[in-house]
Amino acid sequence: MISISPLNTKHLAFVQAKIDNKTKPVGALGALEPLALQLALITAQRAQKSSGFNFSEGKSSGKISINNPAMLVFAGDHGINENCVSIAPSAVTKQMVLNFLQGGAAINCFCQSNDIALTVVDCGILQPISQDEVSQICDDTTDSVNFVEQRLGAGTNDFSVKTAMSISQVEQGFGYAKQLVNAKIEQGAEILLLGEMGIANTSSAAALMSALTSLSVTECVGRGTGITDEQLGKKISLIESALQRVKVSEHNVEKLTQETVIELLSELGGFEIVQMVSAILSAATANIPIVIDGFIVSVAALVALRLDDNVANYLIFSHVSQEKAHQLLLEKLISAQTFTDSNGQALLDLGLRLGEGTGAALALPLIKASASFYNNMASFESAGVTV
Amino acid sequence: MISISPLNTKHLAFVQAKIDNKTKPVGALGALEPLALQLALITAQRAQKSSGFNFSEGKSSGKISINNPAMLVFAGDHGINENCVSIAPSAVTKQMVLNFLQGGAAINCFCQSNDIALTVVDCGILQPISQDEVSQICDDTTDSVNFVEQRLGAGTNDFSVKTAMSISQVEQGFGYAKQLVNAKIEQGAEILLLGEMGIANTSSAAALMSALTSLSVTECVGRGTGITDEQLGKKISLIESALQRVKVSEHNVEKLTQETVIELLSELGGFEIVQMVSAILSAATANIPIVIDGFIVSVAALVALRLDDNVANYLIFSHVSQEKAHQLLLEKLISAQTFTDSNGQALLDLGLRLGEGTGAALALPLIKASASFYNNMASFESAGVTV
Repeated sequence: MISISPLNTKHLAFVQAKIDNKTKPVGALGALEPLALQLALITAQRAQKSSGFNFSEGKSSGKISINNPAMLVFAGDHGINENCVSIAPSAVTKQMVLNFLQGGAAINCFCQSNDIALTVVDCGILQPISQDEVSQICDDTTDSVNFVEQRLGAGTNDFSVKTAMSISQVEQGFGYAKQLVNAKIEQGAEILLLGEMGIANTSSAAALMSALTSLSVTECVGRGTGITDEQLGKKISLIESALQRVKVSEHNVEKLTQETVIELLSELGGFEIVQMVSAILSAATANIPIVIDGFIVSVAALVALRLDDNVANYLIFSHVSQEKAHQLLLEKLISAQTFTDSNGQALLDLGLRLGEGTGAALALPLIKASASFYNNMASFESAGVTV
Repeated sequence: MISISPLNTKHLAFVQAKIDNKTKPVGALGALEPLALQLALITAQRAQKSSGFNFSEGKSSGKISINNPAMLVFAGDHGINENCVSIAPSAVTKQMVLNFLQGGAAINCFCQSNDIALTVVDCGILQPISQDEVSQICDDTTDSVNFVEQRLGAGTNDFSVKTAMSISQVEQGFGYAKQLVNAKIEQGAEILLLGEMGIANTSSAAALMSALTSLSVTECVGRGTGITDEQLGKKISLIESALQRVKVSEHNVEKLTQETVIELLSELGGFEIVQMVSAILSAATANIPIVIDGFIVSVAALVALRLDDNVANYLIFSHVSQEKAHQLLLEKLISAQTFTDSNGQALLDLGLRLGEGTGAALALPLIKASASFYNNMASFESAGVTV
């Protein structure tokens, strides 16, 4: 039974007043202001749990703390790609994982550029990385990338014809990711960023999105990294078959039990998606904010939200991707939050469509800037400004 | 006579091919890709000038270089505020300058958070900062903020009834800013960020925008930091009077001479706007990219562009502000660039309306990330990825 304590909003007015009294017109920092509010409440909740810290006293120690950002990139392969629903063969998943370990991918550049510790997790790519490959890479790489093996199999089954994985694989994945996230928190991580790699995982994500909302498959499907019209048609029809197979139309999406959500995840999910769902739930349980990347990670957030509504207030949406369903999905996720930017938008809109956690990594400096103004900016009184 | 050499686009195809061969689908990094292209061409042009560097040879030394980012915040007061066109009295300009020097403003937080050296320039606030005030601050402040006095007067004249400043004040301002920018470049700055502070400077900026485009005053005027309907009406009518006074309707905005632009700047400008125009021209002359902040800085960019079209390709637009004319202005500025993001948008859209250079400072990590992927990401061959 998953149960996350709701984010305590008792001190919301106190925090908002502190923001409003900074030396700037009220609201002039736009989306960074509700973000600071969210981060302050999360930090307070975490601090209160660990040391009886009382945020409402307004002591100077009431600062946002998001030290040691940790990026976890979860990788897995997808049986559905036997039907060529992606521009790339599944072998590319492993090639890109090796590229991550060698420091040559976009996510390496952005993690290095923004001072984020990077961990790559093999959740079940087709061929595991051999010891030889790992040592080869460690010799070559100057930047240390942490590599973790938490394999649930050698790629999922083709979910258009059968269950993607068993319930016990889902449970194993939940256990793995929980342990990993807790270890990162133990090591000092106060903010978690999520990314993924998995050829064809937009198919799995679109299927889950459609199954967990009232949106049609066509609304949930996009071109991934750039498939043709023909591939797009095939992708839609394969996902529709899968949803018929698991009898999605018989569910009331507003009233899904945790059991049903887990069942849908095993039917339609991917090994990396399963582990991201658990990572989100584990971080929220520990009162750690989670930076959500693009479409696939957002679907993992949707699954987590269907398992426990209270996860919503721990999520930060880094960017809206070019995958067309992402905007629709973000609206649903953001509307589940108690306090959000009035725009109801993700922080960045750069036309990204890469995944790997790149959007999350790029948004981190904005999140840090938000913490910085909350922690360090003068008030009108302290600065002697008379507006 | 201002004359900037056009950005050489001879190697555009070479640079674009390098971007397209990084380990990602073509275009998957969205707005960061044309930004990398722009930065690479600017770096190449600068390097070529200084050491005969030949970018087209594709040597590994062909890396984007944007070290030692320097933020210059130009402050000045405006005679037109005698008519209460802002929410704040002009005294607040100095109070905020003191706040910058004490390290308590949003721009201090964001410069510190993103590792940007901050210089505050008094271009002519009402009351100068006294030596006593400076030493008081230096004792208090742990973060070193550089303070420069380049005063053109004690606030401009009220431009609704007379010339804001003389042509010789404009010339002096151009000289001051040129010297400052060249000193920063001499000290190693390879990218310049601009910000401003000046109560009522949206009035001056709106007047210049209307005078230098075919847009009406109503289209160019917004609520600044939050004026009432009544103040807005007064602001519009004062600006309309000024434009009649300087006979703007007799000019063809498509064919303004440099002389006329300088004349309009002296009629309608502000001391901080004048110095920003020169800062932009000086940086472009030295092949240094310039990060443009919000509405006021964008108007300075428009003035610079009217003086020399070649400035356009050196500009990076950090964000679109909530000041409604800013979106319109950005469209004009971005359309003057040779290569731009297909979206034709600024990097950030966070609903900011603060000024001070805050949007520019917040966008710097994206600009660095863009340089980082260009400089460090693996190619398909080097990573062994077979897509």
